Amino acid sequence: MRARGWDALVLSGSDPHCSEYPAARWKQIEWITGFTGEAADIVITQDHAGLWTDSRYFIQAGIQLDGTGFTLHKTRVPEQVLIPEWIRQNLEADSVLVFDGSCQCVDAVTEFTDEYSVANVPNLIDVLWKDRPAIPQTPVFAIEAGETRASKLAWLREFIAGKDASGMLISALDEVAWLLNIRASDIEYNPMAIAYLLVTGKDASLFILKDDDPDPDSCATFDILRSQGIHILPYSDVELVLSEGFEGKLLLDSDTVNYNLWSMCSADVELCGSPVQLRKAVKNDYEIQGMRKAQLLDGIAMENFLYWLEKSVQSQQGITEWDAAVKLGKLRAENEGYTGDSFETISAYGPGAALPHYITPEENAPMLFERGLYLCDSGAQYGFGTTDITRTVPLGECTSLEKEDYTLVLKGHIDLAMAVFPEGTAGCHLDVLARNPLWSSKRNFGHGTGHGVGFFLGVHEGPQGIRQNFNSTPMKAGMITSDEPGIYREGKHGVRHENLILCKEAGTNSFGKWMEFETLTLCHFDTSAIVRELLGKAETEWLNRYNRRVYESLSPYLSSEVRDWLRDKTAAI
Amino acid sequence: MRARGWDALVLSGSDPHCSEYPAARWKQIEWITGFTGEAADIVITQDHAGLWTDSRYFIQAGIQLDGTGFTLHKTRVPEQVLIPEWIRQNLEADSVLVFDGSCQCVDAVTEFTDEYSVANVPNLIDVLWKDRPAIPQTPVFAIEAGETRASKLAWLREFIAGKDASGMLISALDEVAWLLNIRASDIEYNPMAIAYLLVTGKDASLFILKDDDPDPDSCATFDILRSQGIHILPYSDVELVLSEGFEGKLLLDSDTVNYNLWSMCSADVELCGSPVQLRKAVKNDYEIQGMRKAQLLDGIAMENFLYWLEKSVQSQQGITEWDAAVKLGKLRAENEGYTGDSFETISAYGPGAALPHYITPEENAPMLFERGLYLCDSGAQYGFGTTDITRTVPLGECTSLEKEDYTLVLKGHIDLAMAVFPEGTAGCHLDVLARNPLWSSKRNFGHGTGHGVGFFLGVHEGPQGIRQNFNSTPMKAGMITSDEPGIYREGKHGVRHENLILCKEAGTNSFGKWMEFETLTLCHFDTSAIVRELLGKAETEWLNRYNRRVYESLSPYLSSEVRDWLRDKTAAI
Repeated sequence: MRARGWDALVLSGSDPHCSEYPAARWKQIEWITGFTGEAADIVITQDHAGLWTDSRYFIQAGIQLDGTGFTLHKTRVPEQVLIPEWIRQNLEADSVLVFDGSCQCVDAVTEFTDEYSVANVPNLIDVLWKDRPAIPQTPVFAIEAGETRASKLAWLREFIAGKDASGMLISALDEVAWLLNIRASDIEYNPMAIAYLLVTGKDASLFILKDDDPDPDSCATFDILRSQGIHILPYSDVELVLSEGFEGKLLLDSDTVNYNLWSMCSADVELCGSPVQLRKAVKNDYEIQGMRKAQLLDGIAMENFLYWLEKSVQSQQGITEWDAAVKLGKLRAENEGYTGDSFETISAYGPGAALPHYITPEENAPMLFERGLYLCDSGAQYGFGTTDITRTVPLGECTSLEKEDYTLVLKGHIDLAMAVFPEGTAGCHLDVLARNPLWSSKRNFGHGTGHGVGFFLGVHEGPQGIRQNFNSTPMKAGMITSDEPGIYREGKHGVRHENLILCKEAGTNSFGKWMEFETLTLCHFDTSAIVRELLGKAETEWLNRYNRRVYESLSPYLSSEVRDWLRDKTAAI
Repeated sequence: MRARGWDALVLSGSDPHCSEYPAARWKQIEWITGFTGEAADIVITQDHAGLWTDSRYFIQAGIQLDGTGFTLHKTRVPEQVLIPEWIRQNLEADSVLVFDGSCQCVDAVTEFTDEYSVANVPNLIDVLWKDRPAIPQTPVFAIEAGETRASKLAWLREFIAGKDASGMLISALDEVAWLLNIRASDIEYNPMAIAYLLVTGKDASLFILKDDDPDPDSCATFDILRSQGIHILPYSDVELVLSEGFEGKLLLDSDTVNYNLWSMCSADVELCGSPVQLRKAVKNDYEIQGMRKAQLLDGIAMENFLYWLEKSVQSQQGITEWDAAVKLGKLRAENEGYTGDSFETISAYGPGAALPHYITPEENAPMLFERGLYLCDSGAQYGFGTTDITRTVPLGECTSLEKEDYTLVLKGHIDLAMAVFPEGTAGCHLDVLARNPLWSSKRNFGHGTGHGVGFFLGVHEGPQGIRQNFNSTPMKAGMITSDEPGIYREGKHGVRHENLILCKEAGTNSFGKWMEFETLTLCHFDTSAIVRELLGKAETEWLNRYNRRVYESLSPYLSSEVRDWLRDKTAAI
């Protein structure tokens, strides 16, 4: 840096598509710092090396950064000093700031160009990172999704025309996958291909990395795409096409296009939000049916798992958190259409569960005993849907604090699941329904209550969310969102109860149009840890109705032992 | 307009201080259109005359505009086309738009200057409005407010210095009153003087309209102010001072300075939000004690009123909505420190109560009978606080729908009053607590749940609010806000239950710092119309505790008949 006259190096933990979960090639923050959390950015100056990450990872970062020379800068806390502010406080105007513009969104760089001398050095760590992983290339396959790619592209072309533009570059990986009804496995847990899609009024080009002799699945998929007028071009050609000129106005997605691509555009360019995100979030009937099937299969695996867990712990077989995660993975893998997990299973017992983003260790994982609470947050990708479920179960005797926490979190979960609300209501207005039972006894949790879930796509997707942050996106019929309040007591225990809920219309009356949720996830809530007097009548009725529905839906697919066990577990309270 | 080449005339229903409630002089919209609602703006072109107002006034505007040639444009509805959009749709670029810039906030005019030819004609209707009322001049008096004006001015000077400015023009009437600890009666229901306050690093000038020979109260007040180094200058001199030049940077309140003043400033000017609004909203101990006393006195008047109401209706004395409003006014006027009502009393029976902003007619007011629901929304100004209370009471037999509505609105009111929440929570996050009991049975109301209330100042004040609109202002200890959910069934009945609630600290634990509300208003909720099974245990306990507290607080001040009656009314359910 000194030799080059660089005052500060700013590196993001994302990929050229501003993905939440990048492939190994773009885990540059982990490679540099050793920190393995999913969200981190770093700034290196001559006298400081700082890593910025949020409250989910404070404990982990504290451990992993120890001795590295990196200082932890906390985000999502009231006293946070984010990177732009930190830079302004610590670097004089006209200092040279160096970005890897290929892994930075546009705003993150342009906001400095007035005050500082900004340099864009794409892939700047390539020279140092000798064994840097290659861009992944997994088979690309076509799927059914209830709407043809021709129909989706025609809709996008209408949007483009409405903006008086000639084309739009789709840079978000899940949007490329959704628009073309294709999937791959380029990123762990995320069934997407690393690709760009350029859509113009008359044609479309998919920029994707493939060897000269691609795998048969990809070949077949590309043939289908080509037959529908979609060009297949090498991944890096996107730079060529953008820099060589594009006729008319080109729309770029302000959220996910990287600075490097934006800066090399020779065309008339407009940064705007992609309309795909919202339309993708509103599932069509085919997708909803697929999601229902996925939750059913997932519920079977979950009930078999919970049965096994209870019996194994009671018979003192010495199983660990890791053993449990492995067992659950195996049970899920038996399901039709299973292609992998949708994220790394959190299998956490006692104090481990007090970390919302606990990573279950393969070696020396804590052993499970016949007491206290065990938390398991997991999910799968099926060819017809994505799942995400958390169950917290008592393994034996629980303290009264554990029982209270268990019940109040469940009460919040139920209150949100039961919500009826006017059309146009946003998730940030509903969030308090899940928190109020906890707030009433001065308890709270530090994460959002709900995130959107894709159809055989990312387990986190927008634009809706159920959280305190202002987000004006209304809950629309067809959106599938998680409902996952929790509570975390450091060194003691953690509780989280999570189902996926589908937003549906609920009729119209003189007060307007109404919406409600239908719970999609099918797996019983254990009633033995419930403090009954903390639940109201309506909440208890909801719980009994839900558990009965779980039993009725899943019992035909369970062995007689598990079925009998589940009948007892789902008995009304 | 044709002779002058004007294509459109845009007139607001506000005064030079962008007040919510202007004095008679600035009721230009009423003078032109006959519409008496509190919030309206008009646009007149060669072929259209339009009046824009919100959902509170649709029915009233429909009646009052009939035959005037004015078309109603609805605001606060999803399909609204606000004035800026309407102008862009209906007037070609470069058209001449004429504003009375003295009654328009800055943004409302400047947003057109790029596209249109904008002319500012201050007081443009003066030539037509022959008997236009004068600017009011009522006695100005000084009050105790728990903090000296010297301390408040010193604090504002710190803010000014922090913005590297030399001064700030305070244009909001309630901010002038708050900063100088002065009150007057220039605007009905609003104990303020029409004035500007210019604060600089070393001195302060109050611009206020006073005759050469002012009243003794004002003289005494001005003497006090002068003795503390505050100059008293004629109201219109503010234009002179701003246009003649001001040394250094001058801060103007972006929310309330008018376009005319802003445009004549010769100084280096910065538009910024006034810091006074937030600080004024956080009441000090003296103000809180005063507000408590005001609610106590108001509660005595309310209980005497409700007793009289019940007996009068039961003995079939043929009283009307108007008679009831007059009676309540008289009872309030007996209270120590009463200076007037804080807004026009809404005394509404049956269908009238279905209009949230019903105006009780003096002539031919509906008679009250021994059945159904009567709603009364009223408040007073005392020298030591402001009140705002709504009670809905059954006058006899009620339908089951009336009882359900009565109970569900009360349930929402109680749920909000009981809320406990983390420090930093904004009112828009809490709003759903008051709505959820209604939403659950697909009922709703079309207004906000709570507004800030001043200390012997405006009955509506910001910056906090409890409503769906995003507003990031957190609820802070010392803020006093209304809690007033409702329900309105056109042609049938209306219910609203309103108390004022004080935000307080509620301790700190491992989850952080907690806040809660204390109800300040003291007047029982009638229990006879309650459907008991719709209230939960905690809600019933709250209600019984509240009614008992009302009885204990007020009974020493009531006659034996009213006391006995109130004891029965407040019996636990």
